[in-house]
Amino acid sequence: MFETAELGTKLSKDDYEAQVPALRTDLLRVQNELRDRSDFSVVVVIGGVDGAGKGETVNRLHEWMDPRWLQAHAFGRPSDEESERPAHWRFIRLLPPKGRIGIFFGSWYTEPILRRAYGEADDDELDAALQRINSLEKALVDDGTLVLKYWFHLSKKAQTKRLKKLQADPKTSWKVTDLDLKHFDLYDVFRPVCERALRETSTGEAPWTVIEGTDRRHREIEVGRHLLAAIETHAKELARSRKRRAPAAAAPPTEDATILDTVDLTSTVDPDDYKKRLNELQGELALLARKARRREVSTALIFEGWDAGGKGGAIRRIAQALDARQYQVIPIAAPTDEEAARHYLWRFWRHLPRAGQVVVFDRSWYGRVLVERVEGYCAEAEWMRAYSEINDFEEAMYEHGMALAKFWLHVSPEEQARRFAEREKTPWKRFKITEEDYRNREKWPEYERAVHEMVERTSTDFSPWTLVGANDKKLARLQVLETCRDALKDALRRDKARRAALSPPARKAG
Amino acid sequence: MFETAELGTKLSKDDYEAQVPALRTDLLRVQNELRDRSDFSVVVVIGGVDGAGKGETVNRLHEWMDPRWLQAHAFGRPSDEESERPAHWRFIRLLPPKGRIGIFFGSWYTEPILRRAYGEADDDELDAALQRINSLEKALVDDGTLVLKYWFHLSKKAQTKRLKKLQADPKTSWKVTDLDLKHFDLYDVFRPVCERALRETSTGEAPWTVIEGTDRRHREIEVGRHLLAAIETHAKELARSRKRRAPAAAAPPTEDATILDTVDLTSTVDPDDYKKRLNELQGELALLARKARRREVSTALIFEGWDAGGKGGAIRRIAQALDARQYQVIPIAAPTDEEAARHYLWRFWRHLPRAGQVVVFDRSWYGRVLVERVEGYCAEAEWMRAYSEINDFEEAMYEHGMALAKFWLHVSPEEQARRFAEREKTPWKRFKITEEDYRNREKWPEYERAVHEMVERTSTDFSPWTLVGANDKKLARLQVLETCRDALKDALRRDKARRAALSPPARKAG
Repeated sequence: MFETAELGTKLSKDDYEAQVPALRTDLLRVQNELRDRSDFSVVVVIGGVDGAGKGETVNRLHEWMDPRWLQAHAFGRPSDEESERPAHWRFIRLLPPKGRIGIFFGSWYTEPILRRAYGEADDDELDAALQRINSLEKALVDDGTLVLKYWFHLSKKAQTKRLKKLQADPKTSWKVTDLDLKHFDLYDVFRPVCERALRETSTGEAPWTVIEGTDRRHREIEVGRHLLAAIETHAKELARSRKRRAPAAAAPPTEDATILDTVDLTSTVDPDDYKKRLNELQGELALLARKARRREVSTALIFEGWDAGGKGGAIRRIAQALDARQYQVIPIAAPTDEEAARHYLWRFWRHLPRAGQVVVFDRSWYGRVLVERVEGYCAEAEWMRAYSEINDFEEAMYEHGMALAKFWLHVSPEEQARRFAEREKTPWKRFKITEEDYRNREKWPEYERAVHEMVERTSTDFSPWTLVGANDKKLARLQVLETCRDALKDALRRDKARRAALSPPARKAG
Repeated sequence: MFETAELGTKLSKDDYEAQVPALRTDLLRVQNELRDRSDFSVVVVIGGVDGAGKGETVNRLHEWMDPRWLQAHAFGRPSDEESERPAHWRFIRLLPPKGRIGIFFGSWYTEPILRRAYGEADDDELDAALQRINSLEKALVDDGTLVLKYWFHLSKKAQTKRLKKLQADPKTSWKVTDLDLKHFDLYDVFRPVCERALRETSTGEAPWTVIEGTDRRHREIEVGRHLLAAIETHAKELARSRKRRAPAAAAPPTEDATILDTVDLTSTVDPDDYKKRLNELQGELALLARKARRREVSTALIFEGWDAGGKGGAIRRIAQALDARQYQVIPIAAPTDEEAARHYLWRFWRHLPRAGQVVVFDRSWYGRVLVERVEGYCAEAEWMRAYSEINDFEEAMYEHGMALAKFWLHVSPEEQARRFAEREKTPWKRFKITEEDYRNREKWPEYERAVHEMVERTSTDFSPWTLVGANDKKLARLQVLETCRDALKDALRRDKARRAALSPPARKAG
């Protein structure tokens, strides 16, 4: 696929100078229109061969455009805060808000390509990494982001020439690093790996554009014009597709049984047994959490459930077993404006814990397929695609070695009514009850259907749902604690296995 | 000062249990009121002796209160992202928004106290660090934040007993670390250092409260009640003081000469000379910036000036000399809601660059003493105290070794009018002009006075203002580039001196 970028295309100085002024004016104009609309962001991925003019071209874009609304990011070794999170975290944290352009050098492609070229990963691992990249880019594109990917190519011959030229001039010889030379020696190794990477990730929604890197003027004009046309086209299409978008259909209520009908709401626990079990479980959890902190295994606990289902009480019982310095409870309410300007999962990604820490989400990303779906706050297409975006998100946590547990705290409508009435009477609980809570009760069947589908689509082997019968609060808390304990145990076991696989065997057999 | 916390005060189980329910209800209530008002935040600093129950007490607060609106932070070794910024950055990034409570273990006190106790710093250095802490806390308090500081004390005898008890029980022996034992051996060294630290930082606005740490029940109730009373009192006082606050007085216009009258607006540069000098200066800057990146010296460049004073053009000429991967331009507009919920400098702190990076502020924290002052967007007390807060902020950058330069781009009103008219005619500049720009012209004398006072109060030896005569744009750009070059040179020189002081001398004299 690189042959088309080895034609030696050149642009004369006159042609270049004739084109630049209008191009620059147009780029400034679309950049300004983008800021005015602020309904989508632009993510530009820059990849390719060393010496093909990636840096110079991006510098030129900064010169042509308004650098205040354009941000380039380069990625070296991950910082410790970055390496403590799933691999894509360091990129996601830097995604531009709507109205702005972010340029990512190397980006999420660098690590998988290097690992394969260095022989640290095989084709299957490369493909798995590329699949994750496709999912990430699809999520961005589906959210309205314009994802542009430019691959700067040089033939081996052209790269030889270019590196020699840079090295010969004392003003530019510093640009050729040892790493560049090492990569050059591996040119024939890199080429098929890069081809594979581009082929697997040249999707309909985010295709690669290969740029011939030999001629400075040619590549600058080519990228500039492509960027311009892409933003203009995207702006028009987005406006059209948003007009076309059907209003959100309410989830159909149904008489059919749902998964919630299988939840046992009648069992209870004897108060004395409860105290004993609670103590035991909190003790176990405390020990496991300390171990997880030492081993730098982090944890995410996700709580969903009916209003007054007992989320707060259950979270409190977990907190009691932990050190306040080790955990954080994130209550999910309306997004801040910085959050609303990005993909809806961004505000959850940003709260992923550092190594050994525990984050408890009091309501979560499932809001999209629950309240936002039922109340019509988002379009059907949005909540429909959320299921797989959420699965990808949780898989990334799991792959990173995190402990994960998610709970639906289930109560009967009668029990909920009883609790609302009780709250009204308790002075320090009264503030917990709002008119909205009563309104939500009217949509009980719609919520049941939404929960049913949520469980159907997002209960995975790496992140299963735990449906908790919570008419008896105490019994519910025990089940929550048991599940958290098991999730931590499982993550610690996986961590041990991973470490064993990494460290050399103590002695060789035979 | 610790003698008052060595009285062996105890609270009986009955007294404790009699007090807890009401205290808990009250704490939940004020926490909820705080969220409702969301007009101030609470910062709780926890310091003191190992084994005095700091962690346990904070855990109890989390149990009594709603952990969703309460966040405890512990600080170990700084992450690399943290150590690349001034020392207070890692704390400031975690300041709670209005309406919430943040608990800081050890916090900004740990490092100065440890350094002095270990003999790595002398009393003067300790005092300097404590002065910086006082400034930080004063800035928070002046912004309406409630700053509470609890010091958990144990007598040497009590600490011996406590550590022995913890070590004896296998369930708690892990709590006693080698570091705890090391610190215990240094008890008599630590005590006077801590006394000094507490004495110097027990200010009227943020006094220390010493808590006797011997008895669990006593310390829990004491901290809980103090916290409750402090939040309630603060809420009342804040409401009262805000009612009392005089409306902002407009800056008095004046016929007096201002510092701006001294700026040469008549000099010009020959276009050919300009091209040559521009090239030379950009070359010098490019080399210095590369060196700074290698040496991990970071840079902040701050641009203020009249509308159409040429900030954008000057920034562009700097950008041309830099690699897009090395710098970021931060345009300062209205704060986001996350920013508005914190001290007004928070949104600038968060943009401080990583090691070796350059941040260009297009408008800056000086907005408070310029537009916010002149337009009456903040109270007089707010912009009056901003001068010293800003000086502290810039000094922190300077002390961290950053290169700093700040510019006021000065044009005459006539030149500004000419540029506005010109922009109206240029298609790709037209969007830069708004009605507000014309309105601002009417307050020229008020702005001149504000600039004059800003220079008077914030042109320091570590961060001097550069007033640039910008009627000739080209000449202005050269002066900006020269100043940036000198600022980088200066920072690199300081960096070299610091490295030389750190590394052992090559050989001893004599």
